[in-house]
Amino acid sequence: MNSENLGLCEKRVSPSYVRQGAQARRGHEQLVRHLLEQGKCPEEGWNESTIELFLSELAIMDSNNFLGNCGVGEREGRVASSLVARRHYRLIHGIGRSGDIAAIQPKAAGSSLLNKLTNSVVLDMLKMAGVRSLAGCFVVPMATGMSLTLCFLTLRHRRPKARYIIWPRIDQKSCFKSMVTAGFDPVVVENVLEGDELRTDLEAVERKIEELGAENVLCVHSTTSCFAPRVPDRVEELATICAKHDIPHIVNNAYGVQSSKCMHLIQQGARVGRIDAFVQSLDKNFMVPVGGAIIAGFNESFIQEISRMYPGRASASPSLDVLITLLTLGASGYRKLLKERKEMYTYLAEELKKLAEAHGERLLHTPHNPISLAMSLGSFQARYPEAVTQLGSMLFTRQVSGARVVPLGNEQVVGGHTFKGFMSHSEMYPCPYLNAASAIGITRADVTLCIRRLDKCLRSLKKEAGVAGHKCDGADRGMENHRGAGQDVQEAGSADEGMA
Amino acid sequence: MNSENLGLCEKRVSPSYVRQGAQARRGHEQLVRHLLEQGKCPEEGWNESTIELFLSELAIMDSNNFLGNCGVGEREGRVASSLVARRHYRLIHGIGRSGDIAAIQPKAAGSSLLNKLTNSVVLDMLKMAGVRSLAGCFVVPMATGMSLTLCFLTLRHRRPKARYIIWPRIDQKSCFKSMVTAGFDPVVVENVLEGDELRTDLEAVERKIEELGAENVLCVHSTTSCFAPRVPDRVEELATICAKHDIPHIVNNAYGVQSSKCMHLIQQGARVGRIDAFVQSLDKNFMVPVGGAIIAGFNESFIQEISRMYPGRASASPSLDVLITLLTLGASGYRKLLKERKEMYTYLAEELKKLAEAHGERLLHTPHNPISLAMSLGSFQARYPEAVTQLGSMLFTRQVSGARVVPLGNEQVVGGHTFKGFMSHSEMYPCPYLNAASAIGITRADVTLCIRRLDKCLRSLKKEAGVAGHKCDGADRGMENHRGAGQDVQEAGSADEGMA
Amino acid sequence: MNSENLGLCEKRVSPSYVRQGAQARRGHEQLVRHLLEQGKCPEEGWNESTIELFLSELAIMDSNNFLGNCGVGEREGRVASSLVARRHYRLIHGIGRSGDIAAIQPKAAGSSLLNKLTNSVVLDMLKMAGVRSLAGCFVVPMATGMSLTLCFLTLRHRRPKARYIIWPRIDQKSCFKSMVTAGFDPVVVENVLEGDELRTDLEAVERKIEELGAENVLCVHSTTSCFAPRVPDRVEELATICAKHDIPHIVNNAYGVQSSKCMHLIQQGARVGRIDAFVQSLDKNFMVPVGGAIIAGFNESFIQEISRMYPGRASASPSLDVLITLLTLGASGYRKLLKERKEMYTYLAEELKKLAEAHGERLLHTPHNPISLAMSLGSFQARYPEAVTQLGSMLFTRQVSGARVVPLGNEQVVGGHTFKGFMSHSEMYPCPYLNAASAIGITRADVTLCIRRLDKCLRSLKKEAGVAGHKCDGADRGMENHRGAGQDVQEAGSADEGMA
Amino acid sequence: MNSENLGLCEKRVSPSYVRQGAQARRGHEQLVRHLLEQGKCPEEGWNESTIELFLSELAIMDSNNFLGNCGVGEREGRVASSLVARRHYRLIHGIGRSGDIAAIQPKAAGSSLLNKLTNSVVLDMLKMAGVRSLAGCFVVPMATGMSLTLCFLTLRHRRPKARYIIWPRIDQKSCFKSMVTAGFDPVVVENVLEGDELRTDLEAVERKIEELGAENVLCVHSTTSCFAPRVPDRVEELATICAKHDIPHIVNNAYGVQSSKCMHLIQQGARVGRIDAFVQSLDKNFMVPVGGAIIAGFNESFIQEISRMYPGRASASPSLDVLITLLTLGASGYRKLLKERKEMYTYLAEELKKLAEAHGERLLHTPHNPISLAMSLGSFQARYPEAVTQLGSMLFTRQVSGARVVPLGNEQVVGGHTFKGFMSHSEMYPCPYLNAASAIGITRADVTLCIRRLDKCLRSLKKEAGVAGHKCDGADRGMENHRGAGQDVQEAGSADEGMA
Repeated sequence: MNSENLGLCEKRVSPSYVRQGAQARRGHEQLVRHLLEQGKCPEEGWNESTIELFLSELAIMDSNNFLGNCGVGEREGRVASSLVARRHYRLIHGIGRSGDIAAIQPKAAGSSLLNKLTNSVVLDMLKMAGVRSLAGCFVVPMATGMSLTLCFLTLRHRRPKARYIIWPRIDQKSCFKSMVTAGFDPVVVENVLEGDELRTDLEAVERKIEELGAENVLCVHSTTSCFAPRVPDRVEELATICAKHDIPHIVNNAYGVQSSKCMHLIQQGARVGRIDAFVQSLDKNFMVPVGGAIIAGFNESFIQEISRMYPGRASASPSLDVLITLLTLGASGYRKLLKERKEMYTYLAEELKKLAEAHGERLLHTPHNPISLAMSLGSFQARYPEAVTQLGSMLFTRQVSGARVVPLGNEQVVGGHTFKGFMSHSEMYPCPYLNAASAIGITRADVTLCIRRLDKCLRSLKKEAGVAGHKCDGADRGMENHRGAGQDVQEAGSADEGMA
Repeated sequence: MNSENLGLCEKRVSPSYVRQGAQARRGHEQLVRHLLEQGKCPEEGWNESTIELFLSELAIMDSNNFLGNCGVGEREGRVASSLVARRHYRLIHGIGRSGDIAAIQPKAAGSSLLNKLTNSVVLDMLKMAGVRSLAGCFVVPMATGMSLTLCFLTLRHRRPKARYIIWPRIDQKSCFKSMVTAGFDPVVVENVLEGDELRTDLEAVERKIEELGAENVLCVHSTTSCFAPRVPDRVEELATICAKHDIPHIVNNAYGVQSSKCMHLIQQGARVGRIDAFVQSLDKNFMVPVGGAIIAGFNESFIQEISRMYPGRASASPSLDVLITLLTLGASGYRKLLKERKEMYTYLAEELKKLAEAHGERLLHTPHNPISLAMSLGSFQARYPEAVTQLGSMLFTRQVSGARVVPLGNEQVVGGHTFKGFMSHSEMYPCPYLNAASAIGITRADVTLCIRRLDKCLRSLKKEAGVAGHKCDGADRGMENHRGAGQDVQEAGSADEGMA
Repeated sequence: MNSENLGLCEKRVSPSYVRQGAQARRGHEQLVRHLLEQGKCPEEGWNESTIELFLSELAIMDSNNFLGNCGVGEREGRVASSLVARRHYRLIHGIGRSGDIAAIQPKAAGSSLLNKLTNSVVLDMLKMAGVRSLAGCFVVPMATGMSLTLCFLTLRHRRPKARYIIWPRIDQKSCFKSMVTAGFDPVVVENVLEGDELRTDLEAVERKIEELGAENVLCVHSTTSCFAPRVPDRVEELATICAKHDIPHIVNNAYGVQSSKCMHLIQQGARVGRIDAFVQSLDKNFMVPVGGAIIAGFNESFIQEISRMYPGRASASPSLDVLITLLTLGASGYRKLLKERKEMYTYLAEELKKLAEAHGERLLHTPHNPISLAMSLGSFQARYPEAVTQLGSMLFTRQVSGARVVPLGNEQVVGGHTFKGFMSHSEMYPCPYLNAASAIGITRADVTLCIRRLDKCLRSLKKEAGVAGHKCDGADRGMENHRGAGQDVQEAGSADEGMA
Repeated sequence: MNSENLGLCEKRVSPSYVRQGAQARRGHEQLVRHLLEQGKCPEEGWNESTIELFLSELAIMDSNNFLGNCGVGEREGRVASSLVARRHYRLIHGIGRSGDIAAIQPKAAGSSLLNKLTNSVVLDMLKMAGVRSLAGCFVVPMATGMSLTLCFLTLRHRRPKARYIIWPRIDQKSCFKSMVTAGFDPVVVENVLEGDELRTDLEAVERKIEELGAENVLCVHSTTSCFAPRVPDRVEELATICAKHDIPHIVNNAYGVQSSKCMHLIQQGARVGRIDAFVQSLDKNFMVPVGGAIIAGFNESFIQEISRMYPGRASASPSLDVLITLLTLGASGYRKLLKERKEMYTYLAEELKKLAEAHGERLLHTPHNPISLAMSLGSFQARYPEAVTQLGSMLFTRQVSGARVVPLGNEQVVGGHTFKGFMSHSEMYPCPYLNAASAIGITRADVTLCIRRLDKCLRSLKKEAGVAGHKCDGADRGMENHRGAGQDVQEAGSADEGMA
């Protein structure tokens, strides 16, 4: 209410009470002022009423909510269903314009503000999460994979002759497809096994560059967050190689914002070498529904160039979700979630280790992977070949979601390329295993229940098969001879690969 | 409630009342059954309670809502903000999988059903709107332009050598950018002036094909819905040419679903020639928020091929919006909206005609454009060169949105290509003009208010300039000599171009 | 947003767009200003976004929503469930204070405003509906019956010796109970039969007053809205009698606001005689959920006296409902509903007449009842005694709600008093009948469906019983000899009596 | 979804995923089954989606939501505003019927279930909170005071001659008014001072009974929860006296459910003597919006008698609120709140004690009051007579709500009775004081902030007045000679008295 209306209120109820109400109103306005001024995530979260009031204020600035508007255009933000209007807080015009997804819409000052503020707040959070020297970013209502595609398409205009993308192998379909869809030829660089870990083969990368000719390479496409026993790429070294050869470098940081290690890799890579853009999922890092990604980088004009590649205006829904979420959590709330995730990682690792040992298996040693863990299943596989695939469906039935069972010898064709040992990021990983991850929002109950149910499944498998303990170690490496070809990957609730 | 619970209810309230309640429940279930069975838009719309009940039923089938779920994956559909969870009806997992945006998610039976049903219902509606022989379609949470890009990227795999897209000129940035972003060279074919109308130059198209070589042409990219005085492309003839030369044909049908004429063009094109896919906006045709498009075609396997190009899982938000909307409206409600739009087109044309004549201008004769109209502004321009640009901002201030003022001689560079006479779809349209459209959802009040305000603006302009009546006709064609270069396009509330 | 924040917005998006947004904001504020200034129902309804914005503004003025509040009282408006907080728009403190349901709460300026404005808007609507000289009213979150009780309890303090309430018979339990609960002895005055109508026996009323002594009579308790063939009491004449004897007069106007005739009776009664208060249901007149009533009168200080009788603060829920509803409808929307109701009354009468005649019955002639109609069932009863009761359950099963079947000879004890011919407002109404009413919000489909289903039921009854046509007229009066005692009233979906 | 529809789903998405969804559905149904079977508050709270699904299921059983219903009654549950329908979950018909607020409605099986279940769950919680031998209770949508009135009105029918209600003084307006409104003469029994506590004068009560004659006494009306230094009445002894004299006993347990001590008093009173009914606020005990109360007792038929006194059907809103809240919290959640409240009481007492001592005052010793505390203000009053009243408005301005400042010598007329020393429950309490309470939902931050702000206020008062420390003790009793008459009670944010 403006001061005139407050004055009128004073005629209806006691002025001193109205004045106190007006003062309370200013409290909300101060929060909004701070947000508009700083463009940063507030330290303490807002409550729902402040958020909803703020969104209402934005909505009434859009022309579809003007009381006196008359529209004779082809897109007037008319909404047929009030359920739909309501769930979007009446912000209907989306974000961006045909020329640029970051552009301001004349018809929609409120939606434009939403877009600008979201990008600004997200920038602040990425910095806080570890990429301090970040220059720019924007939310795009597309999957991480499709966002990577957009980055590659943008680079095409800078490097019209380039056909290849050098890509240290990571077995996620959309990751691979992002390059194929953009029309490039992915050059798969197999990982090297160091202890239990699968790590970037830097020499092979450099070799490939020389082999193909730097000018024919669109970019190097590296990955941070991934399933163990693969670990984040050696981003720092890759960045150095890219700088040296003047090749762009795009990082798939799918769910890496939640890990200070992944973010640190990117920060360091940019410091010592070259990173042109890195892309992360909104849903996996900020606990919002599937649907958006953040494209970020160290050179604002390149980031703008990407934003100008999106033809058309786009859904504001992912931006709205992440803005509401960050305003609700506040920076302190988000930090708390990150801290809890880290603690749960340790807890999950301990519990999984105990469980593995109790069943004659072991927790694979993958210290470079800060999110995902893997427990060997070699002894099960050895005694009872179907055990591994069966475990997947047992976990699915018991509502353990996200625990992936990875057998050996899986072969799959993706976008024309045949991957041997698909899902294990390697043509010949020594043993089958089970993945579990500590992702943002995980609770102690998730871990405890998962371990308990997993234990039951393993016991029941043993019973069925009479399997005795048999560790996955060097001696097991011969084991793959026994596995049948064409085994399907079996996961609990998900046979896919962690990048939307 | 299941029958066991209904039985328990009977112990608490009178059995005959509970039985009647149970019977009423069956009424809702019958609606759902019909939808699941037929996969079609119900003839009569559902009320909000049936819709919400149905969405709740879908949501509880997704693993993030399982009461006993434990999650150790990297994407578990956790949502930090209850505002966000609520606005998505707790459907968090999005649609599709990394391999295919149309794929089923093991973790999310409910969201998968939502996706399948939406595509099925939308298919039904596109058929009803006139494309009877449609084979397949899917909703994609991207702008029309970006969706066209996806189509072009898919075609690249079929025609790896092709570099060119032949494109009858339509002055919409995102339309042009959709080709540039995909990495192709648009070949602009200027329109021909027939009376007041700007129409496809079929000969020039065929000439270009021969010039470039059919095998080097990725596709012809035609347009239906557009701003007058441009009219829908001669889709039928273009389809025939494409068939003849074995060139793919992609149609931008941005807001054409709402017009039986546009839909008829596509249906005919597919019958007599070749149309590989046509793309339309969700928001512009179905009165939902900006954010989605429908990619449709006559060969189901090609449409699936496109859907498998999207790398990653995607936002379900546009699908949810359109499903809610179509269930709310029912087929009959949607038909009613189409009918009203048509009536309002006639009304708008009449009113605009009267107004034009009263001000010494005329309604351009563009009978082939079923949505957009144009009124000349030649006399205003002649007497008072700033009049045209000034009119744009006057309308903006008066909350007339969507009425575009198009001056002469505008020049603009889009994606590296220079367009002369930009916004007018022609290098030398004879007079400046003002556009108004009758789009779905328009009301009589929109038209009446717009005409009234426009009249006031024109009167006030005249006063200012002492402008007397001066029609836009043949004699005016020399007028462009007087216009200053670099004039900006001035629109009321929108300087953009009608395709999100 | 205040001007400071708008200024900050201008730094993020174009100032001219922000200014237009700010101007649009003023549009909403103007509506609020008008409401605060006039305290009247706006002529045109507000849209949902204005209403919700307004309610948010009220809510943030309540101390439970103060961002910096700390509470150490026993009632701090804390809410455990966010679903609950949300559904009340965070207005938690209710209305009134311990001393007075109309009082202002220091802790809750917003809720206090809600209360004041609601009472003011409702006053405006009652005037518009016909009681032009109304002086005051307030919404109370109690049933009409309980609100009448409160009126009687208030009168007790003015007339401590009085024990009796004179009450022209109306067969509604809560109506009778309202007097018994207040601790008074209802003196039932039987109605007289005039044609088909049951009307007030004015002479009997006056006789009773003289018999009991005016000083022993607390008040006359009359009724407007009622089921045909009873018609509204002769309020004008009763008011004159009350004035003459200096006896208070309380009118039960349960669902009479929707009828200009009922409202006119009250207006006239107050003009020529005495009416102390009249009470009406919120839900039945304003299409809100059950739960509130309006106590209104011509002497503001007496109305305040009643409001000060309610001990404690009360639910704001009914006030909130009616305020939202009236702001949504606007005065014009409400008038439209009243008009449609009247038209549907005529339509229902015509249809019922045709149906009755087709089945050898007749529509009872009750021109003084503007809402309820009755169709005789004498011939059915004559040939097949169970027909009448059976018809009730047939209609219930067929989801015809609100159609009451009234048999003859029902006897019931209510609050210690035995009513012969209960439900028919008379000890010896000549024939059984069926009631149907045209109440606010009724649609043409309601009438059409009801008539169609009723027709089917009657046909099927006839078949069963071989009943031939037999009109209810003078000759039928002997019919009651045949009816069995103790027959239950049978209604479709409701065996109760029209006053919550 | 029923099994038929699930079968159809399996044709659209993978049967195994649908089956898992169906299994998840059963999880929700099991919760509902348990509720229906047991009629008890679930031990663990439900999540929002289960609650909303359950409420939707109830709603579709009400006739206003029948898809095929046609209504020709005067009350059909039609709702004009969709905002209103939505906020009531489309449960429109309220609770009860004209004859009985606990009765089942033929038109509304769902609302009837809601009513029955709420009363059952609330009964369970009152038992859990300490009144183990409770026989019956019901929620009524009226203030505690109005609910007490209803109890008194019910008793009138049992004791038609009785005129008096014996009432140990408690300075809460609505408490006193509840008797006056019912038409009885309250007989005020002054409290006795024991140490700092004001306690029931049992001898005076018995003296009054003998003086007036037991048959002329409607009931004894005692109070549990109250502001310190008054403490809960000696309910046990009063119950014994009532039993001895065969006089009904009604207990005002306004916010006593949250205290095991208050509940224990009632349980004991019923065990050793007589308690006919006890009444408690919904909002103060269950953290819901103001608006409802629970009437409870040990003789089910008497409780039913009260429920049958309410004339008309009533708002379901308070029932809905408390049901949602208890399902959300679960029994465990509610117990947790009770435990925290107790802990905060101790914390508040400690902090207040320290503060008092720092300022030369003391925490009054009131061990029998388990909720409210009082800190003396004698020294402030002594040196600076305006200090006490000023403190009230200082706290109000600083958003400390609920902290009441009670000066000496206030005199007020309520319902015709003059109370000396009003607000202090005594004609001559020795010192002015400040109240603070630890009520359910209070947080540590509430206490900390309150103490800090209070400290600041006291410091600033001291500065202003140059007040030195001066304890409230025996020596202070002469102090009242100095106080000015007619001082107003000053509270922070509320000048009222703790019983809605």
